[in-house]
Amino acid sequence: MAILVVGSVAFDAIETPSGRRDRCVGGAATYFALAASYFTPVRVIAVVGEDFGPEEESVLTRRGIDTRGIEHVPGKSFFWSGSYMKNLNEAQTLNTELNVFQSFSPKIPAEYRDSEYLFLANIDPVLQADVRGKMPKVKMVCGDTMNYWIRDHQENLARVLEHLDALLINDAEAKMLAHENNLVLAARRILAMGPKALVVKHGEYGATSFFGEQAFLGEKCRTPFRAPALPLAEVVDPTGAGDSFAGGFFGYVASQPQLTPAVFRRAMFYGGVMGSFAVERFGTERLQALDPKEIEDRFALFRQLSHLD
Amino acid sequence: MAILVVGSVAFDAIETPSGRRDRCVGGAATYFALAASYFTPVRVIAVVGEDFGPEEESVLTRRGIDTRGIEHVPGKSFFWSGSYMKNLNEAQTLNTELNVFQSFSPKIPAEYRDSEYLFLANIDPVLQADVRGKMPKVKMVCGDTMNYWIRDHQENLARVLEHLDALLINDAEAKMLAHENNLVLAARRILAMGPKALVVKHGEYGATSFFGEQAFLGEKCRTPFRAPALPLAEVVDPTGAGDSFAGGFFGYVASQPQLTPAVFRRAMFYGGVMGSFAVERFGTERLQALDPKEIEDRFALFRQLSHLD
Repeated sequence: MAILVVGSVAFDAIETPSGRRDRCVGGAATYFALAASYFTPVRVIAVVGEDFGPEEESVLTRRGIDTRGIEHVPGKSFFWSGSYMKNLNEAQTLNTELNVFQSFSPKIPAEYRDSEYLFLANIDPVLQADVRGKMPKVKMVCGDTMNYWIRDHQENLARVLEHLDALLINDAEAKMLAHENNLVLAARRILAMGPKALVVKHGEYGATSFFGEQAFLGEKCRTPFRAPALPLAEVVDPTGAGDSFAGGFFGYVASQPQLTPAVFRRAMFYGGVMGSFAVERFGTERLQALDPKEIEDRFALFRQLSHLD
Repeated sequence: MAILVVGSVAFDAIETPSGRRDRCVGGAATYFALAASYFTPVRVIAVVGEDFGPEEESVLTRRGIDTRGIEHVPGKSFFWSGSYMKNLNEAQTLNTELNVFQSFSPKIPAEYRDSEYLFLANIDPVLQADVRGKMPKVKMVCGDTMNYWIRDHQENLARVLEHLDALLINDAEAKMLAHENNLVLAARRILAMGPKALVVKHGEYGATSFFGEQAFLGEKCRTPFRAPALPLAEVVDPTGAGDSFAGGFFGYVASQPQLTPAVFRRAMFYGGVMGSFAVERFGTERLQALDPKEIEDRFALFRQLSHLD
């Protein structure tokens, strides 16, 4: 079933030890949508400027992604530039220009109203809550956030967390959000803020999911679950790995008739799979043209990598 | 079959956010031996001073560990004090007194000669090579080392690595040994130094094994393997977690009739299991009195934590 994603569609300038790109189509919603598109129909809500033309949009439409919710307005698109020269595990942000995102007011096209799954990518929690409120009937809502919103927009973020089925963030964000350095205790505190599940991404070490006391997936899913990441000899560009994880995770969930503990676990693996592809090339290059067989082969590799038998 | 371990048997003073202990029986060989003792007979070679009496030795003998190779000499036992107040993931060493270890010359009792498995715990690589040379017929040799030997005793260490079946070290040590920050590339370089397998311990994120080109475990084991660690709400004392991992890993291997890829994988899990017990109490407290059923239950939990079905 269709996933609706709201988030940034942007231009990125990236430098890593493997090289640089001055202008590639990026943004959390772009990575998420591309990764999820291998599993289920995806619809995007975002805003772009006059610099974002049909060629740029074709990065999404070639994958069958519905872009009717991408609003085109006067001005320049959101721009981010970052460097991984010092540390491949964490981007050093060189520049962020919100541009047209500064006055973004998400509108939901009529054709998107029947979306059963909603992903709130990392944007202002006020916008996340706004879109969530406009889609009261969705079956499942997942979301992401980042240090900036955790630190300076706590109250707005709290209103988003209350209504999430799953929050997907990284270790540092989880510890910051919970004011707690132990991951298990941090997870408990975050689950008490509302999300029924928490997926903590550990970069090269995989991801762990924690489950709250609320009814979700039944008793069998009280145990945390750890999915591996693939040890890679070369990480060309880590940009978008977390969003690609979320796209693989939620795309797989939305492709299944029912969310069971087994589906949740497999979704964690597909998250890792899509994250591992994303970092193999610059920007979204690798995610634009994957073969379904490559995805299944890598899923099998993730299983081989982590399973006893 | 019996494992012979050579390494430190010592006194530790430890402070962590959960409390402190001024004097507990510690040392790499102690943690290793206790963890391995739940799987297979263990024999220890070490040196202690006059301060190490029957009561201290009973920490080992109560677990059926053969201590006839522990030499008692005049002077004080090896002493280490460390603090985890700032960082539970890495000890800050406050004091190291080699004492009787300074002039240690390992002697192998006649009763130990038929040991089929040898573990070279973290000590001077000259001593490791010496013991290795005295046990030419062992079936399998594993070893550990640390930053100090990697940085300042490279040539001596190289002679140990040449003859190892498996080296067990942590991420920082692997990267330092290989002069390479990417773990996969670091593993390749280390495997080229001699070890047939490399197990890299990631602390709270588990461990990964890499396999070299040499004949070992057959073709099926070229893929790395990742074992999880258990997310714990309280880490009371991380001291000895890595040695306990090694003890669980190698103890399980030695308990099996043959080393197969499946045995290696299960051994990685048992390593994580014993490491997870070690950190639940101060020093070796938890490792001294485990119930075999607790170990099997935790092994089942590790499987549940990481397996799709």
